[in-house]
Amino acid sequence: MVEQNTFNEFLTELSSKAPVPGGGGAAGVGGALGAALGQMVMNLTIGKKKYADVEEEMEGLLVTMEQLKKRLIHLADKDGEVFAPLAAAYSLPTGTQEEKAYKEQVMEERLLAASQVPLDIMEAASQVLSILEVLAHKGSRMAVSDVGVGASFARAALLGAVMNVYINTKSMKNRERAEELNQRADAMVADGAKKADEIYETVLKKLRQG
Amino acid sequence: MVEQNTFNEFLTELSSKAPVPGGGGAAGVGGALGAALGQMVMNLTIGKKKYADVEEEMEGLLVTMEQLKKRLIHLADKDGEVFAPLAAAYSLPTGTQEEKAYKEQVMEERLLAASQVPLDIMEAASQVLSILEVLAHKGSRMAVSDVGVGASFARAALLGAVMNVYINTKSMKNRERAEELNQRADAMVADGAKKADEIYETVLKKLRQG
Repeated sequence: MVEQNTFNEFLTELSSKAPVPGGGGAAGVGGALGAALGQMVMNLTIGKKKYADVEEEMEGLLVTMEQLKKRLIHLADKDGEVFAPLAAAYSLPTGTQEEKAYKEQVMEERLLAASQVPLDIMEAASQVLSILEVLAHKGSRMAVSDVGVGASFARAALLGAVMNVYINTKSMKNRERAEELNQRADAMVADGAKKADEIYETVLKKLRQG
Repeated sequence: MVEQNTFNEFLTELSSKAPVPGGGGAAGVGGALGAALGQMVMNLTIGKKKYADVEEEMEGLLVTMEQLKKRLIHLADKDGEVFAPLAAAYSLPTGTQEEKAYKEQVMEERLLAASQVPLDIMEAASQVLSILEVLAHKGSRMAVSDVGVGASFARAALLGAVMNVYINTKSMKNRERAEELNQRADAMVADGAKKADEIYETVLKKLRQG
């Protein structure tokens, strides 16, 4: 479990040649860091007279962001859990036609499961970015740089997770489904990277204005 | 200490309105995640017949990457340590000319210290990117996606840390020094973002080739 490890243990496991945690888990963790930075900004906005008119909105978004943070950590763990069954499927026997057909079916199911986790990470990271976009405009100016850092992390989560979609869809026999998943992933990267860059520019502009 | 906290504790502290850990600490952590992913790739390359000709190079880079990872975690902690003295300096009295002059001098020193930490994070993240660039070309093909994820994290560390440089240099009285620090930071962002994007494209191309 990512969340109960010390950060040092997580880094040591990530550095090792063990297949999990790997890039997929790291992407989930990156998304959670972006969500946490957004929460920090909301916590610095709520309760301040200057931002009283956005307080209610911030309180609602704070609840959503907490859920997204938890979901991203859960998905980082889940990314590790879908790996072993997939690795096991690669070793299934292929001596007979029945065995071959069975292996193909099992592989296909497990590749789909292994693609779904990074797609879910991307979905959650995209939602984190949408909230950070609101914060760039309405959150406490004092903490606006943290919105920019958060957007950089959510972007890393998106661009990191998409690679794990491609790896798994590449081996799928059902090319129609594989292409559909890739297109969903590509659309999230295109939208998300653009949004992250816009948030970053908005933050830089505000930082320069003082 | 970042490394001895559970990941959950770190995320909770990051989410809170306490000023540290904040974006600077998160940037250090992001750089460390990028370094760890690079180490994973090297650990999957070393000892494989197919990559025997790069084994010595990988072993050397693995040692450097371990140092960079540790340094980034140390800097994430240090980013928290330079905040309190700076915050205290803002509250120094300014009743007399002597007090004003003393406050200005102390502020200047502490703003410099608070700028130096994110600059050091950027320097280390840039070095992580240089090693990831080698790995994109020479590391195990099996783990090439992790190089791409690592590059996304090192990029987030750079773009995250630079904001904390700007925040601190903005308040400096010595504008010549402030501009010099900003220019160093800008150069690292320009180089690093370009390198990260190139690494990412190289990895994508290899993933598509299979």
